[in-house]
Amino acid sequence: MFKKILVANRGEIALRVMQTCRELGISTVAVYSTADAQSMHVKYADEAVCIGPPSSRESYLNISRIIAAAELTNADAIHPGYGFLAENEDFAEVCASLSIKFIGPTARMINQMGDKNTAKATMIAAGVPVVPGSQGLVTDLQEALETAQKTGYPVIIKPTAGGGGKGMRVVHEDSQLDIALKTARNEAEKAFGNSGVYIEKYLENPRHVEIQILSDQHGNTIHLGERDCTVQRRHQKLIEETPSPAVDDTLRKKMGDAAVAAARAINYEGAGTIEFLLDRHKNFYFMEMNTRIQVEHPVTEERYDVDLVKEQILIAAGESIEGRTYTPKGHSIECRINAEDPEHLFRPSPGKLEVFHTPGGHGVRVDSHAYASYVVPPNYDSMIAKLIVTAHSREEAISRMSRALDEFIVAGVKTTIPFHKQVMNSQVFRSGDFDTGFLDSFRFEKK
Amino acid sequence: MFKKILVANRGEIALRVMQTCRELGISTVAVYSTADAQSMHVKYADEAVCIGPPSSRESYLNISRIIAAAELTNADAIHPGYGFLAENEDFAEVCASLSIKFIGPTARMINQMGDKNTAKATMIAAGVPVVPGSQGLVTDLQEALETAQKTGYPVIIKPTAGGGGKGMRVVHEDSQLDIALKTARNEAEKAFGNSGVYIEKYLENPRHVEIQILSDQHGNTIHLGERDCTVQRRHQKLIEETPSPAVDDTLRKKMGDAAVAAARAINYEGAGTIEFLLDRHKNFYFMEMNTRIQVEHPVTEERYDVDLVKEQILIAAGESIEGRTYTPKGHSIECRINAEDPEHLFRPSPGKLEVFHTPGGHGVRVDSHAYASYVVPPNYDSMIAKLIVTAHSREEAISRMSRALDEFIVAGVKTTIPFHKQVMNSQVFRSGDFDTGFLDSFRFEKK
Repeated sequence: MFKKILVANRGEIALRVMQTCRELGISTVAVYSTADAQSMHVKYADEAVCIGPPSSRESYLNISRIIAAAELTNADAIHPGYGFLAENEDFAEVCASLSIKFIGPTARMINQMGDKNTAKATMIAAGVPVVPGSQGLVTDLQEALETAQKTGYPVIIKPTAGGGGKGMRVVHEDSQLDIALKTARNEAEKAFGNSGVYIEKYLENPRHVEIQILSDQHGNTIHLGERDCTVQRRHQKLIEETPSPAVDDTLRKKMGDAAVAAARAINYEGAGTIEFLLDRHKNFYFMEMNTRIQVEHPVTEERYDVDLVKEQILIAAGESIEGRTYTPKGHSIECRINAEDPEHLFRPSPGKLEVFHTPGGHGVRVDSHAYASYVVPPNYDSMIAKLIVTAHSREEAISRMSRALDEFIVAGVKTTIPFHKQVMNSQVFRSGDFDTGFLDSFRFEKK
Repeated sequence: MFKKILVANRGEIALRVMQTCRELGISTVAVYSTADAQSMHVKYADEAVCIGPPSSRESYLNISRIIAAAELTNADAIHPGYGFLAENEDFAEVCASLSIKFIGPTARMINQMGDKNTAKATMIAAGVPVVPGSQGLVTDLQEALETAQKTGYPVIIKPTAGGGGKGMRVVHEDSQLDIALKTARNEAEKAFGNSGVYIEKYLENPRHVEIQILSDQHGNTIHLGERDCTVQRRHQKLIEETPSPAVDDTLRKKMGDAAVAAARAINYEGAGTIEFLLDRHKNFYFMEMNTRIQVEHPVTEERYDVDLVKEQILIAAGESIEGRTYTPKGHSIECRINAEDPEHLFRPSPGKLEVFHTPGGHGVRVDSHAYASYVVPPNYDSMIAKLIVTAHSREEAISRMSRALDEFIVAGVKTTIPFHKQVMNSQVFRSGDFDTGFLDSFRFEKK
C-alpha cells in the first residue's frame, strides 16, 4: 500500500481524497497556489507545498512543479482529483516514468478516450451505442443528404477539431442542409483552422445519464449503476441523483452492460464514468468517458455504500475487485452549492464567508473545504460545498434536501442555496419528468 | 397526521425532532427559556414561545407553561425529547386529558417502568432476567445472609427510596454483612427518610448493553438490535456503538426477545429502550426501561437505516408497524461532544463558541444545535454535538471517527474532542474487550 499520496488538486475534492487517505493510514501532501494558502486542504494535509501563483497554468496545471513537490516530499502516488491534470495524458506519463503511481488510468487510456473521434470509433467497435451519423468527415452535399435521411432529422453538423458551439449547425430538413454545411465548414475553418465537419442525429433535450464503473488491473470491470445529471445550466451540472427517475431495471442493465463493454474495450483501469444521452424512447447513446472521479460521485457512494476514492486507491495499489458486489439502496441527491448569484445569471460571488453553517442529521452528508471566515478566491471554480442527502425514496430525499437546504446558512457571498430550494419545490423536478432543457424554462423567483 | 408538533425540549434533540417534522411537512413549535433565546431550535422552529427564566423548574420542567404554549399555538401533539418531562407521567396525563397527543407511552406505562420495584416485579413475571437478589426489602441479618449465600458474593445493598450512591454497600463475605446492612439502613434513613433496603448480586464491571424497541398501538413490538454504552464516566455515557463487540447473533436474539417480552408485558406504545447489564459469561440482567428516545439513538438509525423520530410520530398517529423488518448493516459509533474540560475532571466549560466547524464526508453524521458564535449556557447539560460515524466494520468505523474528530474544530470552550481522539487510539477500546470500569483506568494525556 502507498505510504504517502500527493493530492494534485484543491477545494473539496482535495479534502475528500485526504479524508480517505487518513482513514487508510496514508500520509498526505497538499499542493497549493498562493491564492489557496488559507485553504482547508492545506491545513488538513500532513505536508503542504506551495507550487506557484494563483494562475492555474502556473500552479495546479504546472506538471513540473507538482512533480517537484512529489519528489521533494517522497510521495509514492499522486491522486489528481477532477479537473486540472486529472485527464492529462502527459501528466500520467511523467508520473509513470518516475515510478510515482498516478491514481487513475494510464496515458494510453486517457488518450484513447480524450480524442472524441477515436473514442467514438472504439465504442462502435465495442458495440456500444453511439449517436448515429456520418462515418467520419463529410465534405459534399450528397453525402450529407444521405446521412441525414438515414439518421432522420433533425441532425447536427459538428466540427471535428473543436467545441464550444462554433462550427455547429442544427438542421431540420433537406433544404437547409446545403447552406448549413457551407456555413459550418467556414466557421470551423476560421475557428480551428480545420474545416472538417461530421454529421450526427440531433437529440432534442435528452436526459444526461452516466454510469459509474470500476476496473482493476486484472481485467475485472463492474458498474455501480447510473447517476442522472439532467439538471444543468449551460452544460454545467447543478443537481445529480441516483437512481435516475427515467431508468428502470431493464434499462439499467443495458446501460451498465454497455458501460462495462466500453471500459473493457480499452482495458481500462481505475474509476471511470461513461456518459450517455438518453432519449424519451429509452434509447441511449455514448457521449464521452471521463477517466477520473466525478464531482457527483457521492450520490453513488451513498446509494451503493462504497468509498469510491478508497476503491481508486486500492485498485491503483493492485487490489482485485473480482467477485465484488454492491447492493444499491435508497435514493440519493446532490446539490452543488456554488458561490454564485442566482439573481444575476449565476455570476460568481467570491469573497469572505462571514457565516458558514452546514446542515446535519440523519441522511445528510456535506463535502466541503469551506469554513467560516474562509475567503473564496476568484481564481477557480465557484463550488464551496456539495450537499448530499439519502433517503428511502426520491420523494423522501427531496423533502430531506429541502430541510437540509433550510439549515445551510452562508453569509458574505451569494450562493445557489435559494435556487436549489426552489428547484426542490418545483412540480417539474418533483415529477421526475424533465430533460436537459428543464432549467431553460425554470424561473428563479427573486425574493 | 399531526399538523403541528410542539417540542418540549431544547438543544440538539429539539432540533433533531424538528428536522423530521419538517421532512414530514408538520409545523413545529419551540419552547425556550430566556437562557436559550439565541438557541438554534428557536430559530429553526416555525413558531417559538418563551416559557420562563433559565431555571429548568420554571421553564422546561414547568408543565403548565408548556401546556399553555401548546394551547396558545394550537399544537395537536407534543414531543418531549429526552430528559426534562420525557418520563413524567403527570405531563403525559395532562396532555391526554387535553387531547394533545403525547408522543410517547401513556402515563400508566411510564409509571409502571418508572418505579424500579414495580418494574422489576413486572419483568420477573414476564420472564425477563433480572439481577438475582432479595424478594422485596430486607430487614434482618438472617434474611440478608440467606439472600447473599443464595445469589453468591459479592452482593450490593441498595436503598429502595433513592439513588446516587447513598445507602449503598458492596459486601464480599458473610462477616461484612451485619455492619454493612446497619450502615446502609442508617444512611438511607438519613438521606431519604426511609430505611428500606434490598439486596442484589453485585455485577463487577459488566457491560452496559441496551435494546431499542418499537411498539405500536396495535400490539406489535419489534426490536432494532443493541447499543453498547459501556464507555461511561461516572454513569454518564460518552461513547456508544452498534453492534456491540460483546454480542453475537445468538445473544442478540436472546436479548432482543427479552426486550420485546418486557415491552409486551406492559402493552407498551412508542419507542423505548430496555437497558441490560451483561456479564463476561453472556448473562444479561434487566436494569431499567427508558420510555423515550435515547441520546444515542442515531447509531441505531444509521445501522438500521431508520428514522426513529419519524417512527415515534407515525406510531403516535396510530400507524401499524406490523410486518416491518429492518436489515442491519455496518458498524456505527457515536461520540458525545461536550463542552467540558477533560484536563480538569471534565468540569463544564460553558461560553461562546468562537469557532465551530463540523466534519463531513462519507459516513459522517453530526447532530448539533450549536453554531459559531453561539454561547453555550451554563444552565443545562454540556453536550454541544453528537458525532456519529458509520462504516463497514468496527475497525473502519474507528478510523473514520478518528479522522472526523480531527476535522471537528471548536474554539472558545474546552471540549471532549481530544479525549475521544485518545480513546479511539487506545488499544483497549480498539480491542472491543472492556467493561464499565474502562474509563476508571484510562489516563487522558494532557498535551
